[in-house]
Amino acid sequence: MKVSPLAPERFPDLPEIAGVTFASTAAGIKYTGRPDVMLARLAPGTSIAGVFTRSATRSANVLDCQAKLGGDPAGAAAIIVNSGNSNAFTGKHGDGSVAAICDVVAAALDLDAQRVFTSATGVIGERLPHERITGKVDELAANLSADGINTAAKAIMTTDTFAKGAGTTVEIDGQHVHIAGIAKGSGMIAPDMATMLVYVFTDARIGQPDLQALVTQSNDKTFNCITVDSDTSTSDTLIVAATGRSGVDVTGNAAFADALNAVMLDLAHQVVRDGEGATKFVTVNVAGAKDAADARKVALAIANSPLVKTAIAGEDANWGRIVMAVGKSGAAADRDKLGIRFGDIVVAENGWRAPDYAEETASAYMKNAELAIGVDLGIGDGACTVWTCDLTHGYISINADYRS
Amino acid sequence: MKVSPLAPERFPDLPEIAGVTFASTAAGIKYTGRPDVMLARLAPGTSIAGVFTRSATRSANVLDCQAKLGGDPAGAAAIIVNSGNSNAFTGKHGDGSVAAICDVVAAALDLDAQRVFTSATGVIGERLPHERITGKVDELAANLSADGINTAAKAIMTTDTFAKGAGTTVEIDGQHVHIAGIAKGSGMIAPDMATMLVYVFTDARIGQPDLQALVTQSNDKTFNCITVDSDTSTSDTLIVAATGRSGVDVTGNAAFADALNAVMLDLAHQVVRDGEGATKFVTVNVAGAKDAADARKVALAIANSPLVKTAIAGEDANWGRIVMAVGKSGAAADRDKLGIRFGDIVVAENGWRAPDYAEETASAYMKNAELAIGVDLGIGDGACTVWTCDLTHGYISINADYRS
Repeated sequence: MKVSPLAPERFPDLPEIAGVTFASTAAGIKYTGRPDVMLARLAPGTSIAGVFTRSATRSANVLDCQAKLGGDPAGAAAIIVNSGNSNAFTGKHGDGSVAAICDVVAAALDLDAQRVFTSATGVIGERLPHERITGKVDELAANLSADGINTAAKAIMTTDTFAKGAGTTVEIDGQHVHIAGIAKGSGMIAPDMATMLVYVFTDARIGQPDLQALVTQSNDKTFNCITVDSDTSTSDTLIVAATGRSGVDVTGNAAFADALNAVMLDLAHQVVRDGEGATKFVTVNVAGAKDAADARKVALAIANSPLVKTAIAGEDANWGRIVMAVGKSGAAADRDKLGIRFGDIVVAENGWRAPDYAEETASAYMKNAELAIGVDLGIGDGACTVWTCDLTHGYISINADYRS
Repeated sequence: MKVSPLAPERFPDLPEIAGVTFASTAAGIKYTGRPDVMLARLAPGTSIAGVFTRSATRSANVLDCQAKLGGDPAGAAAIIVNSGNSNAFTGKHGDGSVAAICDVVAAALDLDAQRVFTSATGVIGERLPHERITGKVDELAANLSADGINTAAKAIMTTDTFAKGAGTTVEIDGQHVHIAGIAKGSGMIAPDMATMLVYVFTDARIGQPDLQALVTQSNDKTFNCITVDSDTSTSDTLIVAATGRSGVDVTGNAAFADALNAVMLDLAHQVVRDGEGATKFVTVNVAGAKDAADARKVALAIANSPLVKTAIAGEDANWGRIVMAVGKSGAAADRDKLGIRFGDIVVAENGWRAPDYAEETASAYMKNAELAIGVDLGIGDGACTVWTCDLTHGYISINADYRS
């Protein structure tokens, strides 16, 4: 698979997070010759927050994680993730696989199975050969190291064309707090409360309820604001683990909240940049809506419209399709107050094409790999920004020709 | 443009409808060398019912039609339709174009402008050169004939690859009532209360309120149950005109209601069969939902899912994507009660793959041009059937490479 033209130049240098160690291995679940399982061990006292798919057919792993969140953080914890098989819609077998993996990890790391969080990503409806994972847990446990996050980012990939990582260091009262995260996801991307697989680690000290509140809030502005194909995964999982090992209490600290949000946004953008078949990274800014909910409706109607996305793929400044998407969104709109911009180019205003609009200027703009579509509904204060990619022959090839 | 592989063998022989005459011409609005305007004259006393797009950015023509529906049916009426330009999002110019066309048609046919109904289909946001239409009205009026419906069906086409018509004759109390309809539409197909351009004519006698009730009811089971790409047109219009010239009063007659519904369903199916790039005609049957609304949510989530539609294009029996679509639909679902069928093949039941399921049987089935996907949620009595097509490279080519 060719690397997305929108990929970052390289995987970033991520800070080490005190209290977190990683190991990865090739278990041969579906892929061969590449790592497909990653294990992270989290020091005792780690607060773990999470957001998960709302899908009614969510995987056994997601259901298990949801049940364990908010448990007693006294002991050590672990996260184990496999790619190649999502363990979704596998009936009671799926529940059994999760239990078997948790038990083996708990034994190998000498911790409570209630503190083991699992994720699985890949094909839906095929029985997970979990014995291939459990058979590797001793090896994984023996290889845990503080600098294994890069390989972990590779182990969780499916149709991803590049490994996704983001991190930062915040100075708080002269002390340093570190954040490092990894993500996977490039198709079946339309978050509904959470998205894809994302793991963020920090050595900040913060209680679980406070961390959960921060994560939920940031999730709404990051992973819940991206879409590739309007399809929602059965496995979407975002887990944020705070080990406290920096010794810095970040409860209520705005700088930490901003830094965490920035890392999550960076990862969310990377997921869009790796959208299946993507050749354009598109920011959709909606303002002037009746309220925030309406702004979101309009932004997602544009970002999910096959006709808008194919026009972008064709570098066609077909703003009539933006009008169509606004109209179908269900949001309150007044044709004669609607304004549309491509980047800084005013395309339409007051219900029709702008007097100075020149098609050739807009067509030249559409050749950029990064595009911004602006819509002002002109009737209120509601605003929302979402990010998406174009819909290309590549998406069809990936999804019609392979079973991913 | 190559004719869709799902097209009917030929345009049907439609019955003539007493009280309706047609004329078409090439006005050169956008296309050249083909008819792009059609005029229909309706005898005095014709009841006219309609359903229109709910888009907030609907066209000037749609707004004008909505305002005129239900007016006094005493005088003659007319319907005039152009292809190549939708006259949507053209500001006050659009309103002016509609008024100009209505005035000229009213003068040429000696009827009230309040009885002239207009539609326009094609590119959004470009000023309609309505003088090309008004300049042809005298010619159209001079050429009106009872057998002009076939050419009219061609005049309203845009990216359609075949002209769409359907008709029938019903015997009621030994007398004959005729119904004939035409439709256009192949992209931007996700009806919201109505769809595309559809004109149905009958010589039945029925009052406007009764006709409207029949049309609204049938629309919900026909045009509101098809989707090509989840995008909703700004111009969707369904008009049904009953001239009464058969002398047969069909008020409350079930046979007529069934016949009208059958003609509408036939036209709706033809629209799907001409879905942009379509190679498969897919029926999605959902049963066992909590209620009808939930069944509709599930059916549309499946029919609109890019991942389901690309799998169908690839003839991949990827039923996991059906599970995904059920999960994301927002409808109540219980994994362990969910059943899935491809045609008569039981794929999944009780929350997992059926014990007798053989991938090769399902793969062979997927090679058919006509497919049925059945979902039983197993929790209630709600049912819904929708029709859709696959998502192929052809759709991308049509919409990324041309401005339609």
